Amino acid sequence: MPLFSDYWKPKIVGELNGQHIKLVKAQGEFEWHKHDNEDEMFLVIDGEFDMELKNKTISIKKGEFIIIPKGIEHRPVVKNEVQVMLFEPANTVNTGENTKSEVTQKK
Amino acid sequence: MPLFSDYWKPKIVGELNGQHIKLVKAQGEFEWHKHDNEDEMFLVIDGEFDMELKNKTISIKKGEFIIIPKGIEHRPVVKNEVQVMLFEPANTVNTGENTKSEVTQKK
Repeated sequence: MPLFSDYWKPKIVGELNGQHIKLVKAQGEFEWHKHDNEDEMFLVIDGEFDMELKNKTISIKKGEFIIIPKGIEHRPVVKNEVQVMLFEPANTVNTGENTKSEVTQKK
Repeated sequence: MPLFSDYWKPKIVGELNGQHIKLVKAQGEFEWHKHDNEDEMFLVIDGEFDMELKNKTISIKKGEFIIIPKGIEHRPVVKNEVQVMLFEPANTVNTGENTKSEVTQKK
């Protein structure tokens, strides 16, 4: 795939069993959201970020991953550019089903 | 999870949307096999290996991944120890549905 540098715009790089594999670069604060029907996995390829949950914040470093179960509100916060691999169902909307914003990606 | 050093014995480290995330260390030649109903993804965490297909061989290096679609016969061949993250449905049998051997893992 071509190189890219834009933030919060996941690129689909693979598909298996109805799941998409995506790569995303990010920096800054995303929005609070949840996915009603889909678990989502974030695997850090380079850099690190904080995953804010309602009751705690978890730092995810290079080589580590976190799975956000369906229905759990979360907000990624990135101090310095991070590169992340995402695993989620092919129909996942990045900002959740009930949130629309300028960073919402089409399916 | 505890450290491990045995080969060809994937350890489940996560689950999402009916898919398992597994870590495996491997060295040597695996067996030819296929999965009738499941696509399988191999992401190299450290090292490299060759994925032999019936008509070609593809080298997968650190940070790269390969997706083997359902029904495709394949055989991993590892010269020096490789560390791989696997993504596959929770019910996948590592040697395929129609092959049983000493390296077959229980579900």
